[in-house]
Amino acid sequence: MTLSFAVLGAGRIGKVHAAAIAATPGARLAAVADAIAPAAEALAAEHGCAVRTLDEIETAGGIDAVVICTPTDTHADLIERFARAGKAIFCEKPIDLSVDRVRACLKTVEETGATLMIGFNRRFDPHFCAVRQAIDEGRIGDVEMVQIVSRDPGAPPATYIASSGGIFRDMTIHDFDMARFLLGEEPETVFATGSVLVDPEIGRLGDFDSVSVTLTTRSGRHCTISNSRRAVYGYDQRIEVHGSKGAVSAENQRPVSIEVATAQGYTRPPLHDFFMTRYSQAYRAEIAAFIAAVGSGEASPGGRDGLAALLLAEAALRSVAEGRSVRVSEIAG
Amino acid sequence: MTLSFAVLGAGRIGKVHAAAIAATPGARLAAVADAIAPAAEALAAEHGCAVRTLDEIETAGGIDAVVICTPTDTHADLIERFARAGKAIFCEKPIDLSVDRVRACLKTVEETGATLMIGFNRRFDPHFCAVRQAIDEGRIGDVEMVQIVSRDPGAPPATYIASSGGIFRDMTIHDFDMARFLLGEEPETVFATGSVLVDPEIGRLGDFDSVSVTLTTRSGRHCTISNSRRAVYGYDQRIEVHGSKGAVSAENQRPVSIEVATAQGYTRPPLHDFFMTRYSQAYRAEIAAFIAAVGSGEASPGGRDGLAALLLAEAALRSVAEGRSVRVSEIAG
Amino acid sequence: MTLSFAVLGAGRIGKVHAAAIAATPGARLAAVADAIAPAAEALAAEHGCAVRTLDEIETAGGIDAVVICTPTDTHADLIERFARAGKAIFCEKPIDLSVDRVRACLKTVEETGATLMIGFNRRFDPHFCAVRQAIDEGRIGDVEMVQIVSRDPGAPPATYIASSGGIFRDMTIHDFDMARFLLGEEPETVFATGSVLVDPEIGRLGDFDSVSVTLTTRSGRHCTISNSRRAVYGYDQRIEVHGSKGAVSAENQRPVSIEVATAQGYTRPPLHDFFMTRYSQAYRAEIAAFIAAVGSGEASPGGRDGLAALLLAEAALRSVAEGRSVRVSEIAG
Amino acid sequence: MTLSFAVLGAGRIGKVHAAAIAATPGARLAAVADAIAPAAEALAAEHGCAVRTLDEIETAGGIDAVVICTPTDTHADLIERFARAGKAIFCEKPIDLSVDRVRACLKTVEETGATLMIGFNRRFDPHFCAVRQAIDEGRIGDVEMVQIVSRDPGAPPATYIASSGGIFRDMTIHDFDMARFLLGEEPETVFATGSVLVDPEIGRLGDFDSVSVTLTTRSGRHCTISNSRRAVYGYDQRIEVHGSKGAVSAENQRPVSIEVATAQGYTRPPLHDFFMTRYSQAYRAEIAAFIAAVGSGEASPGGRDGLAALLLAEAALRSVAEGRSVRVSEIAG
Repeated sequence: MTLSFAVLGAGRIGKVHAAAIAATPGARLAAVADAIAPAAEALAAEHGCAVRTLDEIETAGGIDAVVICTPTDTHADLIERFARAGKAIFCEKPIDLSVDRVRACLKTVEETGATLMIGFNRRFDPHFCAVRQAIDEGRIGDVEMVQIVSRDPGAPPATYIASSGGIFRDMTIHDFDMARFLLGEEPETVFATGSVLVDPEIGRLGDFDSVSVTLTTRSGRHCTISNSRRAVYGYDQRIEVHGSKGAVSAENQRPVSIEVATAQGYTRPPLHDFFMTRYSQAYRAEIAAFIAAVGSGEASPGGRDGLAALLLAEAALRSVAEGRSVRVSEIAG
Repeated sequence: MTLSFAVLGAGRIGKVHAAAIAATPGARLAAVADAIAPAAEALAAEHGCAVRTLDEIETAGGIDAVVICTPTDTHADLIERFARAGKAIFCEKPIDLSVDRVRACLKTVEETGATLMIGFNRRFDPHFCAVRQAIDEGRIGDVEMVQIVSRDPGAPPATYIASSGGIFRDMTIHDFDMARFLLGEEPETVFATGSVLVDPEIGRLGDFDSVSVTLTTRSGRHCTISNSRRAVYGYDQRIEVHGSKGAVSAENQRPVSIEVATAQGYTRPPLHDFFMTRYSQAYRAEIAAFIAAVGSGEASPGGRDGLAALLLAEAALRSVAEGRSVRVSEIAG
Repeated sequence: MTLSFAVLGAGRIGKVHAAAIAATPGARLAAVADAIAPAAEALAAEHGCAVRTLDEIETAGGIDAVVICTPTDTHADLIERFARAGKAIFCEKPIDLSVDRVRACLKTVEETGATLMIGFNRRFDPHFCAVRQAIDEGRIGDVEMVQIVSRDPGAPPATYIASSGGIFRDMTIHDFDMARFLLGEEPETVFATGSVLVDPEIGRLGDFDSVSVTLTTRSGRHCTISNSRRAVYGYDQRIEVHGSKGAVSAENQRPVSIEVATAQGYTRPPLHDFFMTRYSQAYRAEIAAFIAAVGSGEASPGGRDGLAALLLAEAALRSVAEGRSVRVSEIAG
Repeated sequence: MTLSFAVLGAGRIGKVHAAAIAATPGARLAAVADAIAPAAEALAAEHGCAVRTLDEIETAGGIDAVVICTPTDTHADLIERFARAGKAIFCEKPIDLSVDRVRACLKTVEETGATLMIGFNRRFDPHFCAVRQAIDEGRIGDVEMVQIVSRDPGAPPATYIASSGGIFRDMTIHDFDMARFLLGEEPETVFATGSVLVDPEIGRLGDFDSVSVTLTTRSGRHCTISNSRRAVYGYDQRIEVHGSKGAVSAENQRPVSIEVATAQGYTRPPLHDFFMTRYSQAYRAEIAAFIAAVGSGEASPGGRDGLAALLLAEAALRSVAEGRSVRVSEIAG
């Protein structure tokens, strides 16, 4: 049986997901929607599918699933709408910047029984998957301490920052999810500290560009996260997990891995400079997982994972404001 | 303008090239041919193109180019046939196992003015390209010594060996081409030594499974090649170039690059175990280069490169037989 | 001019320093003292020097400097005693476990004008020195975020833990000093979290075996420290510094750096398993620096560095107890 | 029992060995000899030992062993003289540049029953030892192909070249010994090619500065050696061994192993720039082995190893001259 998909939002990530669906046997890209007609038309033409309105997609009998790649402030509404329409849903993170709105949205999802998968793409990176697999196989014993370094090549424009929800909800949220993916226990407390070291404009917008976070779990496992909005050497994405019987790490990836030796030393090229090339394999694997989830009805990471990461971001914000360790239960109620 | 392609041979490499063409804007996979009808039909169905006979493709007005992925003993005939038919031609290496046959074939190609590109895929590996680029940029000064290590994960079956033309024509030929790609001068002499260390059956077929080759150029540059038909740790593909002002190297690639530390040490996973995954990027880039060549009429590596590598293989065979350094001019006449 | 040294304490670190002095042109190992006579005699015999009592060393005219390698609870008294005796002093860290006692001791040192160097050996590791030098040369721009991972191969015995002052004063103190060495600004706030994951006995003694610390400076620079009392893969000692124009890191060291490739992967041996082999070069360089300091009267790291690191340890303890970020000024008064 | 040693030749390598002996419990540096009196006196003063003439050392009852660090053309005479005097002998490589002279010398050594060890220091490098140990432990199965890369930071002065015996006897000889150390079988054939790429003056002296060598053993194992007199990136010393069940390699060593990441890439410092720092551990281990050999009478590598490496150098010279593979038996007779 071939499953039919509609991609909502024909921007850069929408294009990536559309191409992945189109290239997957057993999946069919049936429709593309975008508020900007030429964008939708170009993407539809590339893959030989139809341009449709949201209304048309909602009521179309032949569409099994939607892939939501629209702006963040539309996510929750679209999830609810297509959950009620009986579609399986993939939604780029975050569900919403408001915990209350996310909760309401997930309530609808649960009531409708819709399949919902959230786009924490890094869980599908082959290297990070292999880290998790090494843990699951018991190669490092019990997990004790997780270290995540996650730095962007350069800061986004101020306009982006202004509507991003701040670094914890926008950037660290990926690392909060990765921490949950790796720790094997839910974080109970969050300590965070934030600075403005990269761009004073970010500070004027009330945000930070350099943050350090420590999470702890009930049994005392730790995770530290180091974020910066700027790494001139490329997209710095590393994880390591220390356990009772060993450790496992995933190093940075680069598009070309030669080494040039001269009298000045041995030099390898910079890292990937863009998240979409760094995580190109992850995006493909993620959509493959969603396609499988549409068939099985079992989606992971799901809505609860989206909420859990957002709660950690909220706790981090309160921690910075109050200079103390914040229990997630204070936020989650 | 969209160029139309026919893929001749629907085996594993034919499938790879067909998919690459189908995914390239500006290129169209128009037809597939294979002596085994179900193979042709399956591939055609996957990409929504036609199954055609060689005759039909030869006379079809709308087909600009053919991609020859058939068995080696058909290559030269097909090249000649489609050169005469005015098609641009991509042919998997080797053109033929006989120097005379290759020469005759290339004569036809030249007379017809056909565009011919030979499938030395490794020239299109992004890492090896970057090595060449570093040389071209002068980062290591004058090239002096090239080292190529090229080892297969495991020996092919005896039936394959029997019709392969022997390790120099079948396996080392890639390294001969890589040597020419990197040395910046034509090799003038060849010394080779061969052993049977992996599988006695290979020896009974008159072939070797472990060879070392030294090439030298007019100005005294050296290249050493080390081949084995078996490397239990994966597909071992490394090059390094030492020059007057430095050196440049391309290390092995692995599908997953985590590292697990235990009391026994720090372990990274094995290498790619298959040439098609190791060189997947190279295959795509190669076909992209051919598509560009169909437009421009300028193909590289071309037929003369195919001949040059075969001459080095012939010289290596004679060197092993006679225990001496053999001048390429002895073979080339 | 040859300078004469006495080593106080003939234990394992005393032996190391004695050998370093004996092997240094311009320095002479004149005397060894130890409460355990056979230990002193053995060390003296090895280097052909005298066994002396503390009294004799204190009043000896020909001894320029003492190297204090006795138990921690004797350090402050010995520093004061030999400062008053006009000797230059090298003392293993810590000066004392009590901030007040350290302050009193340093007051005496200042009044006497004695040269005092504290044994933060890691500052003399050639790799960590090179990290600092890269920063000083401006290669990474302004320092923004420092990451220190420091894990012991295995936990010390409970008896050691009981008198150690706890992990922050005993183990993390090296990292606090390294943070100060690298940050380029004094830490102003400390957040720490501690767990018992390795050995419940450590918990029963009121200590932790796994801690994470975040330091921040006035301008917003961060440093995170990750400590564990157990790393089965060896003595895990890494630093990295992220700055506005780049980053610099020092990787782990291992006694043997071969790599074995098999069907199971590529394996390098474990790390050094002992701080004295890991930091053997650092110990030699440290004593060389002290010998130079005896001549120049300029010692670094000095008593104030010892105090500063201890204050960070005190702040960390309070942070864990109160679950909040603690300002160093709260401790320092 | 303490053994007493005399060091003959107070040049740079004599100093290294003298210091190693002086620092070894159970060994005593009793005397130093050098034709240049101030050199001998300075070294003797540093270690508190006597300056003696060769005659005095030869007849001294209390000296157990001599360490020959004099110019090459004195080696064979000194070996014979001190063998007859009943001393154990360590001699820097080579014994002599003439195969006949080496044979005559070894005959004397055998007749006297003297213990003779030859200074192939690389066998004592901890990394290369670990490679050998991995082979001995069966971790890579049967040895099949050995690759040795050995390049000097810069060419020696012409005066050195003129009396060196040429690159094969002077430089490659270390690699010939390493090949024998690793192959597990004696090389039977040698193919060599030589070029002048670094310095035309070397060519005018009849020597080469860039050579490639292939050795083969009876069972068909191969070893390739790549030498250059110039590597601007440092002292390039690598070995790798490929076997039936895996491979083992020893990478280059550098004095400082930091990595600096900038927008231009990730850079590690150059390698060691001098053989005496690169092999400092090897020199100490070598002398420790000799000290043990003086006690046991079992020395390795011994005189036969010195001869075997020289025979390979002779075969390489003939191979270059005649452009063919040369059997060692042609040289050895």
